[in-house]
Amino acid sequence: MDERTVKIGIAGFGTVGSGVAKLILEEAERIAARTGICLELACVVDIDTTSPRPVTLPEGILTDDMGKLLNDETIDIGVETIGGTEFAKDVQLRLLQSGKDVVTANKALLAEHGNELYQVAHQNGRCIAFEASCAGGIPIISAIRTGLTANNITGMYGIVNGTCNYILSNMTSKGENFNEVLAQAQEKGYAEADPTLDISGGDSAHKLAILSSFAFGYEITLDDIYVEGIEGISQDDIRYGGEMGYCLKLLAIGQKDENGKVSLRVHPSFITKDNLLALVDGPFNAISVFGSAVGQVTFYGRGAGMMPTASAIVADIIDVALGNSGMTFRHLRQLPRDRTAGLIECIDNIVSRFYIRIMCKDRPGVIAQWSRVLADHEISISGAIQHEGSGPNNTVPVVIATHPTRQKNMSDALEDMEKLETIHGKPVCIRIVDIPEDKD
Amino acid sequence: MDERTVKIGIAGFGTVGSGVAKLILEEAERIAARTGICLELACVVDIDTTSPRPVTLPEGILTDDMGKLLNDETIDIGVETIGGTEFAKDVQLRLLQSGKDVVTANKALLAEHGNELYQVAHQNGRCIAFEASCAGGIPIISAIRTGLTANNITGMYGIVNGTCNYILSNMTSKGENFNEVLAQAQEKGYAEADPTLDISGGDSAHKLAILSSFAFGYEITLDDIYVEGIEGISQDDIRYGGEMGYCLKLLAIGQKDENGKVSLRVHPSFITKDNLLALVDGPFNAISVFGSAVGQVTFYGRGAGMMPTASAIVADIIDVALGNSGMTFRHLRQLPRDRTAGLIECIDNIVSRFYIRIMCKDRPGVIAQWSRVLADHEISISGAIQHEGSGPNNTVPVVIATHPTRQKNMSDALEDMEKLETIHGKPVCIRIVDIPEDKD
Repeated sequence: MDERTVKIGIAGFGTVGSGVAKLILEEAERIAARTGICLELACVVDIDTTSPRPVTLPEGILTDDMGKLLNDETIDIGVETIGGTEFAKDVQLRLLQSGKDVVTANKALLAEHGNELYQVAHQNGRCIAFEASCAGGIPIISAIRTGLTANNITGMYGIVNGTCNYILSNMTSKGENFNEVLAQAQEKGYAEADPTLDISGGDSAHKLAILSSFAFGYEITLDDIYVEGIEGISQDDIRYGGEMGYCLKLLAIGQKDENGKVSLRVHPSFITKDNLLALVDGPFNAISVFGSAVGQVTFYGRGAGMMPTASAIVADIIDVALGNSGMTFRHLRQLPRDRTAGLIECIDNIVSRFYIRIMCKDRPGVIAQWSRVLADHEISISGAIQHEGSGPNNTVPVVIATHPTRQKNMSDALEDMEKLETIHGKPVCIRIVDIPEDKD
Repeated sequence: MDERTVKIGIAGFGTVGSGVAKLILEEAERIAARTGICLELACVVDIDTTSPRPVTLPEGILTDDMGKLLNDETIDIGVETIGGTEFAKDVQLRLLQSGKDVVTANKALLAEHGNELYQVAHQNGRCIAFEASCAGGIPIISAIRTGLTANNITGMYGIVNGTCNYILSNMTSKGENFNEVLAQAQEKGYAEADPTLDISGGDSAHKLAILSSFAFGYEITLDDIYVEGIEGISQDDIRYGGEMGYCLKLLAIGQKDENGKVSLRVHPSFITKDNLLALVDGPFNAISVFGSAVGQVTFYGRGAGMMPTASAIVADIIDVALGNSGMTFRHLRQLPRDRTAGLIECIDNIVSRFYIRIMCKDRPGVIAQWSRVLADHEISISGAIQHEGSGPNNTVPVVIATHPTRQKNMSDALEDMEKLETIHGKPVCIRIVDIPEDKD
């Protein structure tokens, strides 16, 4: 078996960078015995060279001088674990231009500037590997690009943000409110001090942009994705939805219809309690992919964290070193933007079922009013419950589930409902997502 | 992007071979657009060239002459979908010797003769790709060999036989007996007319041999695997186990301890009802893998069937055509037999919890007797229920769950129990498997 030493440089010695260094140092021997590739950690760059880290580096390889990594021609692979989009982009570009392959977990950067970076990589005959950018340690990108290549992928439903899943599953199991659970998530390290990117759905959208571009083969941009976060979710709706048999998850959804039209969205979603994704608790991630030949395949695991992310990065390093990543990268391209922009469905045209909660004045004729509005917009009701108990201004909560309807009809109906004098405040509207069932 | 035509020959035009032909013919254009690889189905060989198949082949490519495939030097890849071990082995050897790479789903052949075939492939500078051999369309082999390579894999728990899972999950949900459910499975096409290989656990053992050899990096043989099937499972035990919070599955289990000792076994296993694997119904497969860095990763999907299997085979064909399979095959080797044979743990030394059911005579002093036997073998009881109702010879069922104990102690205890005059018949013994929980 060929034995070969491959030198690695890491840019960014934070949590993920430390995990990568730790894994390389601890597992290099086993990896060499298994693959013939001897990984040598040659250089770690960070502006902070003094703070303690959970790994002890060999003498002399930690530096604050990026030039040491960029100009060292013996380094084959640069791992970018800086995060953020501006400086990290600059570093990736310079790594590629200096003839190094790039391995990264930077979903924000790839979602925003991936197409440009891939271009530069192609021009320089290098590759970018990014298994760690989506769903941490779960090998989902490799599954989509390699294991499922023979399939026409028609749908993808993912829980891809551990923070949101931790919050929603704890709101569900403990009956606590959003702010309480968010505070607990921050305490446990599952949510950042500023959790905006996670709870707004932005992080899930980054991952969906990357996953869907490879699943569907289109150049996808963030603008193609409709995004709603979980900030507004109340305990009441989790409970009422639960009574109707649903569980609330923040889903990243990509669907392709028979004409190649793709719809992409991230939003809170009620799914039936017996769906596999409903059973994904805490900070875990899971993604169900539907392929024309394979049917349903579901992947489950840790979507974040130092070592799960490092697991994916080091797997990529080995794959790059073997030459496989480069081959896949060269061969697997997206259809360019000018051919696919027209194939992205806008949110108004998406057909979904909906859960609606309205706070109704408790007096005669109210049902007639709101049901009229729905009828006027051709929305058919599949179920409704008027809960006893009282809300503000002598109102009672009415919860409605609809049959499939166009988003546009629902948006218009909600606008009309809000104008009704018998309804207090803004209606709450959460999509009910019927994940296809591959059963016998 | 490089465009290249790759010619494929299929040996064996049964269900799986038809699926592969169908998928290549239907998806070749999409695959070429995505990967630059134009798959051309050049030759299909079967002794039966007349029976109708679910796919229409291009004129002139179906033949009963294996020489047409073997001697056509323009054919790059041979797909072996004959099944069985003798003729199929001969065909694979001749394909390799005639300079073709081999793609196969033949788990029995690889489990029995894989090491020899891999050797011949290496000698001829060719590769064998076999994603389809385990868990059908789930890309589990690629996950283990590529996505999780950075990990020291410590455990693997899989439902890898759809027939057994169909039978056990239907016995559980419908309360029917083994023979009734087996008949239904045969009717639905989930069980063969002769279901022996499936229900004996043999098929699961084939898959475990393949998966564990790559997960642990050892040359594994079938003799290393302890196997019990599901033939003896009674409705009573499924029900009593259920009352104790357990669900019965046929699991293929591979574990590696900190000294590199590996234990491999296939047997009916009680697992807690809230484990992900307990939720796998009908003919589906799922495998939970535990890695040192990644923690738990679980893969779920269809483990068999024409198109899911074809999905994996065609993915392999593309991967072979790109050169990635060859690279991985060349680099990823097992430790040879002489270095690993001593690292295989024998079943007697395995520590497990156990579920025992004994039919006890309904009279004073009986508990004292069987509990004495367990105590004599240093087996500690974690729970016991004496069910009311009656068995043969005025007996009542007593169900016992134990704390972890060595298999040898349990086997000896069972032997002693069987001798007790107060116990009727052979005790039933089913292992309780505590799948590690990766939770927060």
